[in-house]
Amino acid sequence: MSLTPSLDRLIHQLQKLPGVGPKNAQRLALFIFKKGADFSNALSEALLEMSRSVKYCNICSGICESDVCDICSNSLRDHSKICVVEKPTDVFHIEGTGQYNGVYHVLNGLISPLEYLTIDKLNIKTLVSKINGDGCAVGELVFALPPKVEGDATMALIKKMILKPLKISKLAQGIPTGCEIEHIDSMTLARALNNRS
Amino acid sequence: MSLTPSLDRLIHQLQKLPGVGPKNAQRLALFIFKKGADFSNALSEALLEMSRSVKYCNICSGICESDVCDICSNSLRDHSKICVVEKPTDVFHIEGTGQYNGVYHVLNGLISPLEYLTIDKLNIKTLVSKINGDGCAVGELVFALPPKVEGDATMALIKKMILKPLKISKLAQGIPTGCEIEHIDSMTLARALNNRS
Repeated sequence: MSLTPSLDRLIHQLQKLPGVGPKNAQRLALFIFKKGADFSNALSEALLEMSRSVKYCNICSGICESDVCDICSNSLRDHSKICVVEKPTDVFHIEGTGQYNGVYHVLNGLISPLEYLTIDKLNIKTLVSKINGDGCAVGELVFALPPKVEGDATMALIKKMILKPLKISKLAQGIPTGCEIEHIDSMTLARALNNRS
Repeated sequence: MSLTPSLDRLIHQLQKLPGVGPKNAQRLALFIFKKGADFSNALSEALLEMSRSVKYCNICSGICESDVCDICSNSLRDHSKICVVEKPTDVFHIEGTGQYNGVYHVLNGLISPLEYLTIDKLNIKTLVSKINGDGCAVGELVFALPPKVEGDATMALIKKMILKPLKISKLAQGIPTGCEIEHIDSMTLARALNNRS
């Protein structure tokens, strides 16, 4: 169904967002129209401001609003410890725990041949060349990748590419806090049993 | 979870959209960031363009991009027939059938005391005063309101306010095209039986 030209154009743009189909895009566009000019202006300004300000950190590829993120530029953090994560948001999640004082490296994806995500498309080579480089002070690599085939494959590949002796660890696997035992899948339960403490 | 200031601001704005919660807003904001500046600019431009151009028609309160909509300003349409609808989009739906050549009147809501939608909040008085006015050429009122309590109440109220003899009709009720009889609710089926043709 076609509405007016500029509403149709907005609906067309909104449909490009993930999880927004034609009906939903129309509903959103009409909602924005009904909310009036102030609402559209605020949303539009927030979009432009975000696109102007947010960039990838030159060192860890996390997201920040300067060339180097607050974590990488903080001399109080332990720069000899690098936590390898899949996505920029993972950094904020781990920071939320307050349990890690090292720095990060964001891969921006995991190895996945089926999705054409090969080593060249990910941010792996910068990490490896940094560690293999002369005079590198990195002593520990903490893998905080999702516990699935792609995460394990990515970790195995990076381990293989590292030519120096290094302390390498990954997040402990087990049952999450506050869960019911009956709701845990059997693989997780088996691992939690084997790694009992 | 807080990301960067301008991403947080965008997430805050996106959360104001219907059906968009905190997690979804964050996903949308990161998607828009990843798509790059062109994507943000196009969406922002579509928002501003829509908010500049789209307005309510001065005559029928439908949505259009000029003071009077194409339907109201079209002298080939039958201006003695007014179809009363709830929402501006209903106009486009009915136009899609190609079966109606009259004009429209959009109420922008239905009478609903529970939602504080009273006669003053809806676009009812303009319709009634137009019809009751001297020299009014309107001869037929077609109610295309949703078949529920609020729709029936709104129709009854408007009928009561009209002081002139007028041909008044409403959309036929019955079973929709292509449905299975077993999936029709009993009230619809009873009406379809009583109005069988």
